[in-house]
Amino acid sequence: MQRVISFIVSNQPGVLCRISGLVSRRGFNIESLTVGVTDDPALSRITIVMFADDSVIEQVIKQFDKLLDVKAIKEIPRDKGTLREIALVKVGAVGIDRKDFMEVVNSRWGVVLDMGEHTTTVQLTGTISYINESIEAFKKFGIVEIARTGMVALESGDTQLYKGDDY
Amino acid sequence: MQRVISFIVSNQPGVLCRISGLVSRRGFNIESLTVGVTDDPALSRITIVMFADDSVIEQVIKQFDKLLDVKAIKEIPRDKGTLREIALVKVGAVGIDRKDFMEVVNSRWGVVLDMGEHTTTVQLTGTISYINESIEAFKKFGIVEIARTGMVALESGDTQLYKGDDY
Repeated sequence: MQRVISFIVSNQPGVLCRISGLVSRRGFNIESLTVGVTDDPALSRITIVMFADDSVIEQVIKQFDKLLDVKAIKEIPRDKGTLREIALVKVGAVGIDRKDFMEVVNSRWGVVLDMGEHTTTVQLTGTISYINESIEAFKKFGIVEIARTGMVALESGDTQLYKGDDY
Repeated sequence: MQRVISFIVSNQPGVLCRISGLVSRRGFNIESLTVGVTDDPALSRITIVMFADDSVIEQVIKQFDKLLDVKAIKEIPRDKGTLREIALVKVGAVGIDRKDFMEVVNSRWGVVLDMGEHTTTVQLTGTISYINESIEAFKKFGIVEIARTGMVALESGDTQLYKGDDY
């Protein structure tokens, strides 16, 4: 099952390397990893999506929590979180049925951002699985290239992962 | 100036650590870094945004291009690229003017994704600077927490960064 872990770390050189090093040494099966700044420039938020059962998740959280740079860490259950990823997909546009193409764009809530002579670039937004399904739907037109951010998540409701001095 | 570098790497354990290790050892001033899968499961796309002049960018590209795992690397000029980031912003919702709040949401093309008792979570999409400006506009309501993906980019038009066997 896809699980989402969110954590707040010090925004310092080397932190990402320590985190990703731990991930690869332990052989965790990571689906996506994103790093973004928070409203406090001293802190970054890392979101990891991975396939794992309860015991692995428990182990991951314990391992990461040991790292000095990790200020807070928590699993965000998928049914209790707001989860989003963005993908840019450049699709072939030669000899395609444009009406059919725009129907796929609209049915997947896509946004056309750029049109080349032979390609069209579409923005897709949603969860990882929603974007995977959407990309499948575009495959018949031919995928030229893809850029995906990986997924971010916030817990639903009023919770706050890390109550730093700045909050 | 903010510059965007996109590269295609082997999707193997340890690659992210080698890349982020090089970044931190060289002291590059990274604004954002994203890693996402491509349509070929053997390859990932990394997008780095950094403040740098031409000579630094040249040096960065040369350094990364030396790494065995890097299949292709290119700067994406901001005026010749489609650039997007997604941010989830949890904003205070107690004692605020809801009409004013929704005006800010709509003026920044935001989407309300979740409403707690005391907070509202808004999705923002755009370039890094657009999202920075949008977050500024929400500050008067009180920011509770933020999750940002970092920016991804595809070159405008029909270009393709890496022509692998799968294309």
